[in-house]
Amino acid sequence: MSDNLVISIDAMGGDNSPKIVIEGLSIVADRNPDVSFLLFGDEEKVNAMLKDYPKLRNVCEVRHSTDVVSNEDKPSQVIRNRSTSMYMAIDAVKKGEAQAIVSAGNTGALMAISKLNLKTIQKIHRPAIVSIMPHRTGRYVMLDLGANTECDAINLAEFALMGNIVAKNALGIERPKVALLNIGAEEMKGKEEIRQAAQIIRSSKMNMDFIGYIEPHQIGDGVADVIVADGFTGNIALKSVEGTAKLFMRIIKDRVKKSIFAKVGVLFMLGIIFKIKKILDPRLYNGAMFVGLNGLSVKSHGGTDALGYYVAVDNAIKMVRQDFVATIRDELEKVDLDELSQEIIYDSY
Amino acid sequence: MSDNLVISIDAMGGDNSPKIVIEGLSIVADRNPDVSFLLFGDEEKVNAMLKDYPKLRNVCEVRHSTDVVSNEDKPSQVIRNRSTSMYMAIDAVKKGEAQAIVSAGNTGALMAISKLNLKTIQKIHRPAIVSIMPHRTGRYVMLDLGANTECDAINLAEFALMGNIVAKNALGIERPKVALLNIGAEEMKGKEEIRQAAQIIRSSKMNMDFIGYIEPHQIGDGVADVIVADGFTGNIALKSVEGTAKLFMRIIKDRVKKSIFAKVGVLFMLGIIFKIKKILDPRLYNGAMFVGLNGLSVKSHGGTDALGYYVAVDNAIKMVRQDFVATIRDELEKVDLDELSQEIIYDSY
Repeated sequence: MSDNLVISIDAMGGDNSPKIVIEGLSIVADRNPDVSFLLFGDEEKVNAMLKDYPKLRNVCEVRHSTDVVSNEDKPSQVIRNRSTSMYMAIDAVKKGEAQAIVSAGNTGALMAISKLNLKTIQKIHRPAIVSIMPHRTGRYVMLDLGANTECDAINLAEFALMGNIVAKNALGIERPKVALLNIGAEEMKGKEEIRQAAQIIRSSKMNMDFIGYIEPHQIGDGVADVIVADGFTGNIALKSVEGTAKLFMRIIKDRVKKSIFAKVGVLFMLGIIFKIKKILDPRLYNGAMFVGLNGLSVKSHGGTDALGYYVAVDNAIKMVRQDFVATIRDELEKVDLDELSQEIIYDSY
Repeated sequence: MSDNLVISIDAMGGDNSPKIVIEGLSIVADRNPDVSFLLFGDEEKVNAMLKDYPKLRNVCEVRHSTDVVSNEDKPSQVIRNRSTSMYMAIDAVKKGEAQAIVSAGNTGALMAISKLNLKTIQKIHRPAIVSIMPHRTGRYVMLDLGANTECDAINLAEFALMGNIVAKNALGIERPKVALLNIGAEEMKGKEEIRQAAQIIRSSKMNMDFIGYIEPHQIGDGVADVIVADGFTGNIALKSVEGTAKLFMRIIKDRVKKSIFAKVGVLFMLGIIFKIKKILDPRLYNGAMFVGLNGLSVKSHGGTDALGYYVAVDNAIKMVRQDFVATIRDELEKVDLDELSQEIIYDSY
């Protein structure tokens, strides 16, 4: 597949498009000479931007779209308008012209159009949102971050299967440690569906290093490479982490402002502040991946810059290079999660 | 009630008991001359410790218990042994000899014995675990932190009612802002039971400043004084916050170790590090309160010190002084949450 690797790009999504998009892609093109791009957007604007990046221009095909999905558009509206850059970019993946689509536009719209057009992989019940995040000594993948408010045991087991593949493909971890997010380490803790998911994963023939439950305060230690949760819980954990990091920074800043000594201290610490900022730089974790569909859909943060956009596209490329969708299908061939889950759920009554 | 304020104490619970317990109580006694204590534990050990605190000894009655609940004991075992210091301390509240019980022992055991003996307040369906936590400019109360893995709309509405009273009593906030924890601010976001709880609270005659949904990353800004969630979600959010704070500190420490400049910087910043540590000092937030029962049950952290133990007992005293249980009963007199929830849940079909 890497002979003909094409990424479809919604050039109009995001706060500062198509500028950021083109700048980001120029970094991608420099580092991935074998990848080409299908760009959807205002032809005139996109071509004008591309003039400054001849190397990128050589691997781009620009297709004109008349409409743009706005941040206010409802999913129910956007799925009906086939003339938007987002719709056309996703449609290219559906038609097999590209293997992944990246957009910095409206999240709900991207999810709705992707689901409608790419359809869920056979035997996968629900797609999920995956992100890559930092822990103390490296990175981990977490899913679902909000696609599914309620999940049953089989959904969670499928997320584990997909997350395992994401960690292999995007993080390059040979045998990722996979854990279910729960509120206790003991076998009987937490919700019924989590306990059943653990049983399904254990009794399946999944080729996976499943380490059981993980509690949120252990994530930062890097105990697991893949954290699996339902979309509500995953989103709560994600936003709690973001909120605490923000609160921490605010408390420090508030205090530093009031102290001349502390300001001097900050000068001495600029080196490590720079390094810590680099470790936690949100641009390095840009690109929420929508997995479980016949094709990969990646949402870049709307307000990111060229580096952040590059990271999102680069993750998509890593996944496609290892044929992510086919790997999920292969893994599903080996296990019958449906049958397993029925046995386990019946057993518990 | 404040004429005869008695707190029942499990003197044997916790890592370093009864030493920490007595030291903590001596601070409480200094600051609350009108409060007396019923201590349950090894009479000899407790009395030996009390010798050094004559002022405290004057307001203590020590009752001998032969057994101690260990951290390994299962709830099903401990509810059968009436000779433990924990069981006897809770029993004193049941008998009306004390208004609250504080223990630094086994959490599951404390919950089980408290529920069994104190019983849920009439019209309250489920008790909840409440804690007080720091935000940027003050403190807030959060519940449920793990007593109930699954909750329905009426449970959440009752938690809101009780949390509102805790914020008034323990934080002294006249009209607390109450919010439901959710993954979006929009009316239609999140789980069914959360949306229904919002409707129940809004249509009830509850005297409460209900501000709608709050997302986890907003908590730190101090937008709300009371955060309501089911026990699973609350526990996930709490542990995510704890984990991130820990991760943050570790990353900073790891980096400071490697840099002489940073070490010098730390010297200049000692003043604010001390102040920040003071704001976030876990001892100041010690004491998880089990509310919704006929009597208050407070769990102190097992590894805390005298200051932490003091804080846990002090919270209990604040709640009892304002007659927490009676206030809940009064509020429940004014609203029929059961009827309301039936109307709202039927309406949604």
